Amino acid sequence: MIISTKKGTPQAEIDRIIDNFERQGLSVTLIRGTDYNVFGLVGDTTRIAEKDVLANPWVENVTRVSAPYKRANRLFHPEDTVVNAGGVPIGAGAPVAVMAGPCSVEGEAHMCQMARLVKQGGATLLRGGAYKPRTSPYSFQGLGTEGILALVKAREETGLPIVSELMDEAHIEEFERYVDLVQIGARNMQNFQLLKAVGKMTKPVLLKRGLANTVEEWIMSAEYIMAGGNENVILCERGIRTFETATRNTLDLSAVPVVKEKTHLPVVVDPSHATGDYKYVESMAIAAVAAGADGLEIEVHNDPQCAWSDGAQCLKPDRFAETIRKCRLVAAAIGRTM
Amino acid sequence: MIISTKKGTPQAEIDRIIDNFERQGLSVTLIRGTDYNVFGLVGDTTRIAEKDVLANPWVENVTRVSAPYKRANRLFHPEDTVVNAGGVPIGAGAPVAVMAGPCSVEGEAHMCQMARLVKQGGATLLRGGAYKPRTSPYSFQGLGTEGILALVKAREETGLPIVSELMDEAHIEEFERYVDLVQIGARNMQNFQLLKAVGKMTKPVLLKRGLANTVEEWIMSAEYIMAGGNENVILCERGIRTFETATRNTLDLSAVPVVKEKTHLPVVVDPSHATGDYKYVESMAIAAVAAGADGLEIEVHNDPQCAWSDGAQCLKPDRFAETIRKCRLVAAAIGRTM
Amino acid sequence: MIISTKKGTPQAEIDRIIDNFERQGLSVTLIRGTDYNVFGLVGDTTRIAEKDVLANPWVENVTRVSAPYKRANRLFHPEDTVVNAGGVPIGAGAPVAVMAGPCSVEGEAHMCQMARLVKQGGATLLRGGAYKPRTSPYSFQGLGTEGILALVKAREETGLPIVSELMDEAHIEEFERYVDLVQIGARNMQNFQLLKAVGKMTKPVLLKRGLANTVEEWIMSAEYIMAGGNENVILCERGIRTFETATRNTLDLSAVPVVKEKTHLPVVVDPSHATGDYKYVESMAIAAVAAGADGLEIEVHNDPQCAWSDGAQCLKPDRFAETIRKCRLVAAAIGRTM
Amino acid sequence: MIISTKKGTPQAEIDRIIDNFERQGLSVTLIRGTDYNVFGLVGDTTRIAEKDVLANPWVENVTRVSAPYKRANRLFHPEDTVVNAGGVPIGAGAPVAVMAGPCSVEGEAHMCQMARLVKQGGATLLRGGAYKPRTSPYSFQGLGTEGILALVKAREETGLPIVSELMDEAHIEEFERYVDLVQIGARNMQNFQLLKAVGKMTKPVLLKRGLANTVEEWIMSAEYIMAGGNENVILCERGIRTFETATRNTLDLSAVPVVKEKTHLPVVVDPSHATGDYKYVESMAIAAVAAGADGLEIEVHNDPQCAWSDGAQCLKPDRFAETIRKCRLVAAAIGRTM
Repeated sequence: MIISTKKGTPQAEIDRIIDNFERQGLSVTLIRGTDYNVFGLVGDTTRIAEKDVLANPWVENVTRVSAPYKRANRLFHPEDTVVNAGGVPIGAGAPVAVMAGPCSVEGEAHMCQMARLVKQGGATLLRGGAYKPRTSPYSFQGLGTEGILALVKAREETGLPIVSELMDEAHIEEFERYVDLVQIGARNMQNFQLLKAVGKMTKPVLLKRGLANTVEEWIMSAEYIMAGGNENVILCERGIRTFETATRNTLDLSAVPVVKEKTHLPVVVDPSHATGDYKYVESMAIAAVAAGADGLEIEVHNDPQCAWSDGAQCLKPDRFAETIRKCRLVAAAIGRTM
Repeated sequence: MIISTKKGTPQAEIDRIIDNFERQGLSVTLIRGTDYNVFGLVGDTTRIAEKDVLANPWVENVTRVSAPYKRANRLFHPEDTVVNAGGVPIGAGAPVAVMAGPCSVEGEAHMCQMARLVKQGGATLLRGGAYKPRTSPYSFQGLGTEGILALVKAREETGLPIVSELMDEAHIEEFERYVDLVQIGARNMQNFQLLKAVGKMTKPVLLKRGLANTVEEWIMSAEYIMAGGNENVILCERGIRTFETATRNTLDLSAVPVVKEKTHLPVVVDPSHATGDYKYVESMAIAAVAAGADGLEIEVHNDPQCAWSDGAQCLKPDRFAETIRKCRLVAAAIGRTM
Repeated sequence: MIISTKKGTPQAEIDRIIDNFERQGLSVTLIRGTDYNVFGLVGDTTRIAEKDVLANPWVENVTRVSAPYKRANRLFHPEDTVVNAGGVPIGAGAPVAVMAGPCSVEGEAHMCQMARLVKQGGATLLRGGAYKPRTSPYSFQGLGTEGILALVKAREETGLPIVSELMDEAHIEEFERYVDLVQIGARNMQNFQLLKAVGKMTKPVLLKRGLANTVEEWIMSAEYIMAGGNENVILCERGIRTFETATRNTLDLSAVPVVKEKTHLPVVVDPSHATGDYKYVESMAIAAVAAGADGLEIEVHNDPQCAWSDGAQCLKPDRFAETIRKCRLVAAAIGRTM
Repeated sequence: MIISTKKGTPQAEIDRIIDNFERQGLSVTLIRGTDYNVFGLVGDTTRIAEKDVLANPWVENVTRVSAPYKRANRLFHPEDTVVNAGGVPIGAGAPVAVMAGPCSVEGEAHMCQMARLVKQGGATLLRGGAYKPRTSPYSFQGLGTEGILALVKAREETGLPIVSELMDEAHIEEFERYVDLVQIGARNMQNFQLLKAVGKMTKPVLLKRGLANTVEEWIMSAEYIMAGGNENVILCERGIRTFETATRNTLDLSAVPVVKEKTHLPVVVDPSHATGDYKYVESMAIAAVAAGADGLEIEVHNDPQCAWSDGAQCLKPDRFAETIRKCRLVAAAIGRTM
């Protein structure tokens, strides 16, 4: 950590600063400049908050040199992590995973039909929302337990492991029992109580990036889960909020190489929520594979206009199969299986 | 709601669209253009999701004319709402409220000391975090129940009603019993499970705006609480995330008149979290009062460098008192008491 | 264009609005709702500005159904445009173009050396900045005419057409004479005087997207050039400004399919400026080809640490050649030559 | 400047880095950490670009301690600058300036009428656009020289100095001759050729902040003008682009205290362009004065619905006068004249 103080900082204050950090077990080097004094801190600075240091009015700015995360940090775990999601390995050299299915679970028969269709099209996991985070209290809020059981039935019929979103601690037991990959949605990425709770689960976690969260904050949320004891975290880029309105969100594909540089965790991409428009899903899915993503999460519905939620971003099964076919060619071109 | 379809939409599709909406009890008018057809829908469109309509590939775009919220909508409730927070009225012609105190509760003695100091400086409510949402799992996470009880003690000593952040459903009973104004933090603004739960509380709610949420989404979250039966919602602007890094967030003061035009709810401003820097808190507090805010939430600490969290944005008690003194002059200038 | 007015708009005002638009040759349909009145306008609304309509206090909102651009609009020009840049066709089925070279021209000998190296690596056009837009007045501002002449020399030696940025009207003649593809930089995307001026040039234009400009504004800037008579415009996505700081900008790859849907113009991608970091250029270049881009613009330097500008985002020639090799495999996988 | 390099950086590389900076006249201190090495550079680092240092693959990150600007820097010029705009002092203790008038000049008679009305309402300078930057090539582009002469006539009649936007070098002579305060628009904030050109003018400059520019970039653009010899620069905050769509832009009022801390230049606020909606102009104007702005720029039109541009954000003369009346009360409350 590097701290600079203003011109004219009194010697007593400089001594106080050095003394304060040394008492915390850090080694401090002082560099005197013309306009600023700079302090270099060596040691474990994970527990020091920039904002507390900045409370000193003599301090001009604070820069963290080491990343504030440890368990997720590639520096300390150079090898890629492979997460096992209900039998499907995700990450490193494993085949690019394909999570597909409708936005909301719409009943058992429909779910089983969709499971067969997405499996045919190339899916390796089945997605479906039983608990739905909806902007409006007047929108459909999900089938709940009935939806989870429909997913379980579809898994029995097709063998596809299931991915579903957990929205609160009250359903942790249900998810621990039935779901193969527990999704934490974008709006809950910094619901720290929930992160702590899933940190104690044995099931792997798919952590979506928040709409307005930096890559560092996203990794810190993974760190929360890992610090709780659950090291099986997969990161999922799903678009960030920007000024652009031509797409629902702006897919930040460069997050894929950034995450891979900074962490050892697998990263998957959700082109459906990122673009919000079925017309752009295919090209962004192909681009995600080309960028090195370890998996895709894609919404598929046999009749998007009648989907119970998010129809505009659903692919029909045929278009989905065609998209995966193209993704496989691109995966092969970059030396990866799918 | 206005829907436009592409050039060349077949007549059968046009008939199907009209039929579909009419069966939902809406009246539909068709306007034929050269390049587009436009459908005007009259009736209650609250339950129709834009995204489902957009799933039709013939549809070009969808515009909502009526706002998607009802209970929060000024159109249906022209009078300003006044919320009673532990005896302090907030909103409409009531004096501008001042919620102040440390970011985190740091123990009973300190809390009581801080309560006396902020009361002296002009506070009308006491704030303090007992449960803290922290980006890092390695940071201090709050004193919990001990912190709530310290706030209760400080209330007994000073008479100031207390404001504190609720982070999960598990502590609802505790907050219902002890806290006067239940704060929902920015990171939980779209934690819909929590919104539903506080919708059943009898205590009023201070709903902070999410870092990347539009005013409309913010009002929709208020609507969630109100739809649950709790109509006592106060909105709190606390800065949004933008590309600018000179301040922690960007305070969107224009949200004050926007919210007042669209809803009947009180709106307060938190210049501490918005700027993240004590040097800018005073000018933004004064500006917020000038912009018509119904209250302020300000972090105050006797020794910011030793604060257990967010020291960089805390005012010292003297500076706080001076800030409130200036705010009162401005309030008087615009014809408001404080 | 769809206009809605508030509840209670007097009949005289409604008549006035209808009359006003009819006098402009538009046909108006009125739909009366419970809470709003809606007016549908049919005819050429290109000249009506939303902001002028909104000046009427009875008006609630205005929605444009037709895009505000004509010449760039795919609706009126369904066929893809192919732009000839110094003999290299760009767009439609043409091979994916590769523009490469140093950020700044650093002298004739160096330019010729770089031209040979990028040609070897797969470049089909040579880029180099002779006039440099620099944030600081104290930074190197470019070699000027000497730089342009160095590019000309390098073209003579390698046959590669040259791309360079034009910053003001004063050098239009020089660019008309020497440069094959005239680049308009992100910071000048809405320098309308310059757009009008290049609209009269005979050389094709590479129009970079502004850091904070929507796709629609970007197309409107292309429309400026085309309205001046120069229809040979290539759009270049180079990253937009968001809250994320892990990359210099956020590459908006979904802009590629969006632009291709809305216009008939070629679109290329610059992964160097988008990421600002050589480590992420390869994966974003490959992803851009996968997303359907018609070309790439990549910064290459033999000794990035000594580059006269933007060294951090330059590939070395070997890494560049390797990147293009991978891009070609991906291009082949999606059925495109490169 | 602080530079950190990765774990495992070879000694030879460390020596090379130190040597390189020492040869540039800087003094270098090395701090060895467990995971990183840190170099502290003391001396004039203005000419070193972060991006060039980052080109070294051993370098992890670079932090600039000193601001990259000198002439605009309060550190070297502690006293507030007062700019004389056609006889009206702006900045420091001077009365809060009021620049008002229509968006576009619409002819001599109208301009003179508007000048009288805004003067009556409290304006101290007259604004009007003769050259208009318009998103669409099909919109009205301004009256040009005829507009400038109409402003001159209005100045003769009312004595109000005139402010108008300069869009290109071609009209510098005209502005030098006729205009009292030369406005550089948001879209040209990084049109560096234009900045260099106005740096040689004798007339003061009103530099608007770009839609997506940080405060630091904005100050760097002021530095361009000052480096050219023209030290009379006034900064104008006019809203930045964010995800929020309820207002045209998001007014960043905290930029006022930030700019005042970092520079000695006056700063004014334009609530009209920031909000884009006449309904929000009054509250934001009052808030700007409360925040410490040295002036306001407000669009006023006698008949906004018929304004030639931007009618939606224009105040009518009566509302403008009422707004200024309230601003004066607030100015008095914070100890300032207006």
